[in-house]
Amino acid sequence: MKVTFVGSGNVATHMALALKAAGALIDQIWSRNIGHAAALADLVGARPVSGLSEIDTNADLVVIAVKDDAIAEVCNALKGIGALVVHTSGATDLHVLSSFANYGVLYPLQTFSKSRPIDFNKVPLFIEANNPPVLDELKIIASRLSPLIYQATSDQRKILHLSAVFACNFVNHLYELGNRVLQDNGLDFEMLRPLILETAEKVQHDLPLNVQTGPAVRNDQQTILKHLKLLDGEPGLQEIYQALSKSIKKTS
Amino acid sequence: MKVTFVGSGNVATHMALALKAAGALIDQIWSRNIGHAAALADLVGARPVSGLSEIDTNADLVVIAVKDDAIAEVCNALKGIGALVVHTSGATDLHVLSSFANYGVLYPLQTFSKSRPIDFNKVPLFIEANNPPVLDELKIIASRLSPLIYQATSDQRKILHLSAVFACNFVNHLYELGNRVLQDNGLDFEMLRPLILETAEKVQHDLPLNVQTGPAVRNDQQTILKHLKLLDGEPGLQEIYQALSKSIKKTS
Repeated sequence: MKVTFVGSGNVATHMALALKAAGALIDQIWSRNIGHAAALADLVGARPVSGLSEIDTNADLVVIAVKDDAIAEVCNALKGIGALVVHTSGATDLHVLSSFANYGVLYPLQTFSKSRPIDFNKVPLFIEANNPPVLDELKIIASRLSPLIYQATSDQRKILHLSAVFACNFVNHLYELGNRVLQDNGLDFEMLRPLILETAEKVQHDLPLNVQTGPAVRNDQQTILKHLKLLDGEPGLQEIYQALSKSIKKTS
Repeated sequence: MKVTFVGSGNVATHMALALKAAGALIDQIWSRNIGHAAALADLVGARPVSGLSEIDTNADLVVIAVKDDAIAEVCNALKGIGALVVHTSGATDLHVLSSFANYGVLYPLQTFSKSRPIDFNKVPLFIEANNPPVLDELKIIASRLSPLIYQATSDQRKILHLSAVFACNFVNHLYELGNRVLQDNGLDFEMLRPLILETAEKVQHDLPLNVQTGPAVRNDQQTILKHLKLLDGEPGLQEIYQALSKSIKKTS
């Protein structure tokens, strides 16, 4: 299988590495920034290209892994390509690809950083396609990457993306706020790391509602008031503390 | 070393198990509920007691691991005891124990559930004592439980506890909100678990500020507006989404 990547960011990097490891030939890497294209091409033994018109129309699969708002523009430039074309975006509709004959979505629900290797066996993949034969083809491709394959509509994918904002982006920001509270008082983030890991591990085999702890779920108003006082001078943190405590009380 | 536990909850359970594994003799377990005392006593080979007056005054160490608002009452009932008395609370001052001759704090910064075993080697312990010899004694006891030992004042401990509310209690609630968004749309929490684990693992060797992702940090206003629209009919979730997005933009 000959694969071309349009994009060279975190998703493109990890997916190209995983497809190569699964036996695919990564043929071309395009990026607006030729240096970025060359760096990823180097990593996976592909050729960097700087013009979308240079993309080989004989590829078996073209993976569009650029920023959401650049997908439409890329599609325009690739018009008429015969390959199976997929994008990797959670928030983008399948139909943005409708100018192609065969198209689909391959959305990995995971957070990728260039500097951290990722085990694709533990990455859930959500697939969608414009017709049943393409869906079957995508299933085969996806199954070379991960055993965690789900079919999802564009609307479901948007919901998955939204839930990931809560469970990943916002969670990471709460780590940062915990860190800020510590640093303002001469304490170190290192002290919080074991707690952070255990909190995530606890819900791997249980539901978060069953393991909720802390002053809000106990309705321990005294501690809540003490905490709000400690956050004096941090109105943004007080607002977040109150909104989340209110939500926990309402849920439990 | 002969140890008595006052309390039989999650902290008492895991600390008693860890001290026993480290070679201590767990002598007595007190609980307001004699059934709970008996259950933990059974687990660690101790004797359950139902009256605080029955506590053996010859114990080497008495660990008070009851709810914060019950600590003062327990101290009153134990007045005159010669043992080293410690409490395990993050939010409670050392001086609540000042009626004893030798006292201190042994605060584990971790989330405990009865049903999940915990590796105490990965639990940071924060200690404080009423004088240097007691501090030395506490260091020796703590070092039998974990290599992660820090000295912390009562004020620092309150800050650690506050930061844990952000990085553990609130984080778990965000997992729950992610789950709610999925369930309302026929999707399953299982799909989020790998992302949750990777998000926690990412900050084990990096700072959260360096790995923040998502629409808010990219200032992707279009996606933020789409998400708020998907949350129509969930004003509580919209409030949390906006407060956290605002805070991320301000931080980055």
